[in-house]
Amino acid sequence: MNINQNYLKLEDSYLFSTIAKKVAEFTKEHTEKQIIKLGIGDVTLPLAPVVVEAIKEAADEMGKRETFRGYGPEQGYAFLRESIKNYYSKKSVELESDEIFISDGAKSDLGNILDIFGLDNTVLVPDPVYPVYVDTNIMAGRKIIFADANESNEFLPLPDENVKCDIIYICSPNNPTGSVYTKEKLAKWVDYALKNDAIILFDAAYECFIKSHELPSSIYQIEGAKDCAIEFCSFSKTAGFTGTRCGYTVVPKSLIKQGASLNKFWVRRQTTKFNGVPYIVQKAANAVFSDVGQLQIKENIQYYSNNAKIIAETMDKKGIWYTGGKHSPYIWLKCPNNMSSWEFFDYLLNNIAVVGTPGSGFGRNGEGYFRLTSFNNTEKTIEAMKRFSDLI
Amino acid sequence: MNINQNYLKLEDSYLFSTIAKKVAEFTKEHTEKQIIKLGIGDVTLPLAPVVVEAIKEAADEMGKRETFRGYGPEQGYAFLRESIKNYYSKKSVELESDEIFISDGAKSDLGNILDIFGLDNTVLVPDPVYPVYVDTNIMAGRKIIFADANESNEFLPLPDENVKCDIIYICSPNNPTGSVYTKEKLAKWVDYALKNDAIILFDAAYECFIKSHELPSSIYQIEGAKDCAIEFCSFSKTAGFTGTRCGYTVVPKSLIKQGASLNKFWVRRQTTKFNGVPYIVQKAANAVFSDVGQLQIKENIQYYSNNAKIIAETMDKKGIWYTGGKHSPYIWLKCPNNMSSWEFFDYLLNNIAVVGTPGSGFGRNGEGYFRLTSFNNTEKTIEAMKRFSDLI
Repeated sequence: MNINQNYLKLEDSYLFSTIAKKVAEFTKEHTEKQIIKLGIGDVTLPLAPVVVEAIKEAADEMGKRETFRGYGPEQGYAFLRESIKNYYSKKSVELESDEIFISDGAKSDLGNILDIFGLDNTVLVPDPVYPVYVDTNIMAGRKIIFADANESNEFLPLPDENVKCDIIYICSPNNPTGSVYTKEKLAKWVDYALKNDAIILFDAAYECFIKSHELPSSIYQIEGAKDCAIEFCSFSKTAGFTGTRCGYTVVPKSLIKQGASLNKFWVRRQTTKFNGVPYIVQKAANAVFSDVGQLQIKENIQYYSNNAKIIAETMDKKGIWYTGGKHSPYIWLKCPNNMSSWEFFDYLLNNIAVVGTPGSGFGRNGEGYFRLTSFNNTEKTIEAMKRFSDLI
Repeated sequence: MNINQNYLKLEDSYLFSTIAKKVAEFTKEHTEKQIIKLGIGDVTLPLAPVVVEAIKEAADEMGKRETFRGYGPEQGYAFLRESIKNYYSKKSVELESDEIFISDGAKSDLGNILDIFGLDNTVLVPDPVYPVYVDTNIMAGRKIIFADANESNEFLPLPDENVKCDIIYICSPNNPTGSVYTKEKLAKWVDYALKNDAIILFDAAYECFIKSHELPSSIYQIEGAKDCAIEFCSFSKTAGFTGTRCGYTVVPKSLIKQGASLNKFWVRRQTTKFNGVPYIVQKAANAVFSDVGQLQIKENIQYYSNNAKIIAETMDKKGIWYTGGKHSPYIWLKCPNNMSSWEFFDYLLNNIAVVGTPGSGFGRNGEGYFRLTSFNNTEKTIEAMKRFSDLI
C-alpha cells in the first residue's frame, strides 16, 4: 500500500514550540520577572451568558425523550442557517439558506473545501499567511505560488494580470497582518477571478472586528463575488467559540465551474464525510444572534478592540510602522532598528519580558516584522505597552 | 479552474428519499393506519442524566473567565483519551494515549483518514455495505473492488488470496447485516493484511452491542492487528451521541508504511485540517466512562438489544433466515417467498403498515434482503412483530 507521499513534503513548523522553549528558559532564569504574553492567538474572555444558557437548555432537551435529537442535517439546522441569512441581510448581502453550511469551524472547512477541486489547479497564497492555506495544498500536491505582501502594498497584495492561478486565498481582516482590503481593492481580486475563471476562498474569520461600513466584511458586498467566491466564517473570534467549535461556509448557487454546481458538490462532500455540528453547539451559536446575544458579544469584541487600540497608539507614539490594530485584533509592526523577527523577539523578552510572535514564522515576507495581539487582558496590555515605551 | 471530476462519477442514492415518498403516499391514502417504522438507523433514547449534567457543568466552566477554555488539543483532551485508554484496557487491549484521537464522529474520520493514503491504492469493500466507504473512495478516484457477502458466508466475507488490495474496510458488528466476525475469522483478515502489506480500516461503531467476550469488540484483540489496522469508534450508538457528535480513532504507533508513521501522518492531518471537538462535548463523552455513566448507557443499549431480540425471535418462529439481532441493533432477513427487497418493502407497508429498509439499497448482494432495526420503542416493536406474525 502507498502512503500519500505529499505529506513527506510538509515542513515542520517550530514557530510556537521555539517560542515556548525560549519563554520557559527565560522564566527559569528570571523567576522574579512577570511575563506578559501578547502572542496569544486565542480568545480569553468567557462565553456570553446567553450562550451558556442556550447550551444548558439544549442539554435539557437532549435529556428528555420527547425533545431528544439524533442525527441532524449535515448542513446545519434551519434555525441557525436562517439566523446567519438574516445577519448577512443586515450587511446588504442576500443569501438563500441552502447556500449556508454550518461547520465545526473555518479551519476544517478551509481544508475540506479542497476536496471538490481538481489536483491540477494552481493555488495563489499571499505571503505572509496563515500556514493552513499552504499545508493543506501541499498535502494534495497542488502547485502553490505566492503573492508578495509587503510594506509597499501595506500587506494587501493586488492581482497581477501576468500571473495565472485557479484558487486564490484572501483573508481580510488578515491573520497575521491585521490589514483589511477596501472595497475597491477587493473588487480587483473579484475582477481577476471572473476574468481568469478562478475561485476565491475568502476567509472572513475576523470580520466582527471591522468597525466601518466602508470596509467589506463579506466578499459578497463586492459585485460579481457570488460568481467566483466561497466565504468562510466562524464564531471563534465573534463569540469566543475557539473551544466550542462552530463556523459556517457560504457556497453560492451561482458558482458554476465546468458546468457543475459547487454548491451541490459541497453538499455531497459534507453529506458523505461529515455528520453535522452538535445540536447543543448550534443552539449556542444561534443564541449569539438574539438581541441580548449581540450586545453581549459586542462587549467582548470591544474589549479586544480597545486592547488593540492601546497597542496601536503606542506604535503611533513611537513612530513604528505597522498594519492592523484598527479593524483587527492583530498589530503587525516593523521591527525597529532593522532587527530581524527573532532578534526583536529576544530583545522584547530579555529586556521587558513581553512575548510576541516573530513575523518570519508566517512566511518569507514576514521577516523583519512582528505580531502583537489584543487577546490578553487590558491591565496587562497597558503594562506591556508601558514597558515597551520605556524600552524603545 | 478544474473541479474534482471524480464527483461526477458518484451515483445519487434514492434509497431513503424513495422510502419517505412511499410512506407519505401510503399515509395519505390510509389515514386510519398507524405506521410503525423499523427502518430507523438513529438512536431514539435521550442522553443519559450524567451526560446532561456534564454538559451543563462544562457550560458553566466556559462561562467563567478562570475556567474558560479556548482552542483545545486537536487530538482531544488528555482526560478523555485516558478514559478511552482504560476502556480498551478492560478489553485486554493496551494502547498509549497518543494512539487515540478524539473526533466529531466515525463518519468524518472514516472519510478523512483517506487523506493520508496514496490515490493509487486498491480498496476492498464488502457488499452490501455502509455507502460512505464506497463514495469517499470514488471522490478520490481510487479503484474499488468488492468482497461478496452472502448467505453462504453468513454475510461475513473472508479474504481471497488471489485478490490483491491495499485498503480493506471491515465493519463488525456490521451495518447493515448485523453479522459479527469471530476472532478466528477476523484473524484471517489480519493475516491477509500483514502478508499483503494492506491496511484494515476497522469500523467498530456498533461494538457496544457485543455481549460475548468470545467475539472481538476491537480488532486489536487479534494478534498482529496493531501492525495493520486503524480502528474507528463512536459514542453515537454507545451513548446516544448521534446528535452530540463524538467519536475516536485509534492509529497505533507501530503502523509503519513505506517507512512513514501513519500515527504521525494522522497527527499532521488533524492538526492541519481540524481544530478538535468542543470541550463541552468531550466532557459529556467522558461522563460516559464514570461508573454511573456506564450503568446508565448500558440500560439504553439493553433496551435496544431487547427490541432486537423481539424481532429475532419472530424470525426464528417463522423460520425466516437472518443475520444479526444478537450482538447488533440490526436484523438482516431474507425476504420470504423470493420477494425482491422492494417487493417485500411494499408488501409490509401495504399489508401491515410496517416500514423497513430494502437491502438492495446497500449494494448488489443486498437484493432479496431486508433490514429491520431495534431503535423504535418496545411497545411499537412488539406491535409490529405481532402484525408481522399474523401476516407471514
